[in-house]
Amino acid sequence: MGTFTISDSSSGCIDAAGFRIAGVHCDVRGKGDGRLDLALLISDKPATAAGVFTRNRVAAAPVRLDRELLARGETFRGFVANSGNANACTGENGMGDAQVMQAAVATAADCNPDEIFVCSTGRIGKRLPMQRIVAGIADAAAKLDSSPEAGLSAADAILTSDTRRKVCTARVKTDAGTVTVAGMAKGAGMIEPNMATMLAFICTDAEVSQADLQALLSESVNSTFNAVTVDGDESTNDTVLLFANGASGVRLDPHHPAWEAFREALAAVCHDLAKKIVGDGEKITKVVEVRIDGAASDADAELAARAIANSLLVKSSWYGNDPNWGRLMDALGYSGAAMAEETISIHYAGAPEGEAVPAFTRGTIHEDCLADWKAIVAAKEFRILVNLGQGNGSSRVWSTDLTEGYVNFNKSE
Amino acid sequence: MGTFTISDSSSGCIDAAGFRIAGVHCDVRGKGDGRLDLALLISDKPATAAGVFTRNRVAAAPVRLDRELLARGETFRGFVANSGNANACTGENGMGDAQVMQAAVATAADCNPDEIFVCSTGRIGKRLPMQRIVAGIADAAAKLDSSPEAGLSAADAILTSDTRRKVCTARVKTDAGTVTVAGMAKGAGMIEPNMATMLAFICTDAEVSQADLQALLSESVNSTFNAVTVDGDESTNDTVLLFANGASGVRLDPHHPAWEAFREALAAVCHDLAKKIVGDGEKITKVVEVRIDGAASDADAELAARAIANSLLVKSSWYGNDPNWGRLMDALGYSGAAMAEETISIHYAGAPEGEAVPAFTRGTIHEDCLADWKAIVAAKEFRILVNLGQGNGSSRVWSTDLTEGYVNFNKSE
Repeated sequence: MGTFTISDSSSGCIDAAGFRIAGVHCDVRGKGDGRLDLALLISDKPATAAGVFTRNRVAAAPVRLDRELLARGETFRGFVANSGNANACTGENGMGDAQVMQAAVATAADCNPDEIFVCSTGRIGKRLPMQRIVAGIADAAAKLDSSPEAGLSAADAILTSDTRRKVCTARVKTDAGTVTVAGMAKGAGMIEPNMATMLAFICTDAEVSQADLQALLSESVNSTFNAVTVDGDESTNDTVLLFANGASGVRLDPHHPAWEAFREALAAVCHDLAKKIVGDGEKITKVVEVRIDGAASDADAELAARAIANSLLVKSSWYGNDPNWGRLMDALGYSGAAMAEETISIHYAGAPEGEAVPAFTRGTIHEDCLADWKAIVAAKEFRILVNLGQGNGSSRVWSTDLTEGYVNFNKSE
Repeated sequence: MGTFTISDSSSGCIDAAGFRIAGVHCDVRGKGDGRLDLALLISDKPATAAGVFTRNRVAAAPVRLDRELLARGETFRGFVANSGNANACTGENGMGDAQVMQAAVATAADCNPDEIFVCSTGRIGKRLPMQRIVAGIADAAAKLDSSPEAGLSAADAILTSDTRRKVCTARVKTDAGTVTVAGMAKGAGMIEPNMATMLAFICTDAEVSQADLQALLSESVNSTFNAVTVDGDESTNDTVLLFANGASGVRLDPHHPAWEAFREALAAVCHDLAKKIVGDGEKITKVVEVRIDGAASDADAELAARAIANSLLVKSSWYGNDPNWGRLMDALGYSGAAMAEETISIHYAGAPEGEAVPAFTRGTIHEDCLADWKAIVAAKEFRILVNLGQGNGSSRVWSTDLTEGYVNFNKSE
């Protein structure tokens, strides 16, 4: 590990210098409940930006807008995000609405529309209440601030079915001074890699080129946000944005001695936010780490990990504290990964640490360990360690159990 | 349709001439509850046979045994099947146990071991109680009979979490006399095409070559048993066996004028049994037909149909009578099938018949039809009709809702 530290207390994005932020209520949901539902972030100076977006072919209007923006633009000033309405499956009108949001930010915060990203999350297939959204943007622009309160209000404003806010801050020491990487995220349902009604915004006050920033973000997202699954449903709106505004006065690139620490700090922030998302999965009771080793390739390992992580029968058994390794074998068998029953080993282990207890190793069933298996899977977090005995491929995914509460919660919107 | 009729009452396999059958209790589960758990079927004369098996790479011992048998043998006499234990993930011992079952049938029913198929269904990862199984086989052989009672006992003996027996009989009129196609099936959980703790046994008294029989069965299974899904979990034990013993005295081949009717009769029996399986899905409240048209290819259509049919969010919304077409769009988007939001049309319709009501057609949301959508999805059966507007590919899948009851039922075994 490099010389970075995760902060005990975080106020989200605003912990990075040179950004102002606000979270306000503009009644996106039309319920008049005062709930915060619009967040605005502005960098004092032009910033470079990187983004990773859903691979769902039915991408929401703001996702399509942001992709174009990122491909075309060189510097950016920030983003506006609303919860309560996804602006997805809204056709040409939806794209127009996203552009109006850009324009409203440009007017209120004195920048160009093309410098502002737009994100939406919530119900699919409804037009945004544009009058209220535009009023909300003006209100947020007037409240832009660098206080912790502003940071936390913004972190609250992006939440939907989440039960708690998700923020994380890391600090990297360099010879030229301290650099901060700070972010906030939302997500609890429709969570599956690549990515899943999941929004994350990360800010750093380092100065980093757009190309370096994008490479770094893509790498970090793969092993963190893209490695969590609650229900296997990949959303139309998933977005991770990373801004770098240089306000710390420290310029970083891959040849800089502190680059590795910066890279690890970003990965740690992504990991922390991703774990907070899966840990806040809708009505879940458990978080399970599924680790596959010995696969014929990394791609095979990922197939195997996802088959286990998304199996209804496996997830139901976790809910019931049942160490049902037979269902793991079944899921491995249909995963599509190369395997042979005789070379598979499965162990259960506590999380994040704990001895690995064998369940099924190369044809042998360890029934004598039943009491140990049961004790491990009864915990709120545990690990499943699979070795396919085929090669050197590996993958790691965090999943949740499937509960009656999840079904009841999602049976209507 | 050809000249075949589905019988109003069926006694399962035994409705085809020249077969004897039995269903007995031999206490596979070790509960001493008297539950029927072993079925034996014997053809009076050698029969041709065809089989379709799970594509799960973790295949149970009896599946591996049957595959070899079918590849090697020319004529067969029948099968033995037990419920309560899958004989899966049981290594070399499991294969030995399956062979002992063959030998026990050969001794008790006076035939060769290589003429007998073996099927098992139930819990994964436990050795079979072989003493009780062998005693059960002797008992069943002594009770072999062609009575309806024997047929129904066998149909009951293969059930696991099913709530009702599943049998179907079709009769085909030919110039040379009547041919019967009759079968029984089991399956309720771990149900996903290709195939899913699903066993089906079909018998006909027509005389058909093994090659013709296999081609016919493979074709029928694809559009029936392989088109139902309850939970997306593909089992280690799925097997469909079809026997043709010629006892009707009618020899059929693709050039025979009654071949088409025979083909349709077999497809109808497979369809009926498949629908009975999905309709008896564990703790379900609804059966939903998902039809995809206008896909770039049939393979794309199947991806799209399965994405909808297996989405937790979609299935949860069905449970809640919520016509949540936005979740359908989301599932289509991540299915992997080629598509564009602007060319997709989604309609809801009653089942098996009923007017198609538009939900989302090429960018237009038909909110004015909301009351109609709600009325349709509130029914116990309904259809979702999707046109992707990309080409001529089509696919049809039957799925179920996801209920709190399913999760509770499967949280432990």
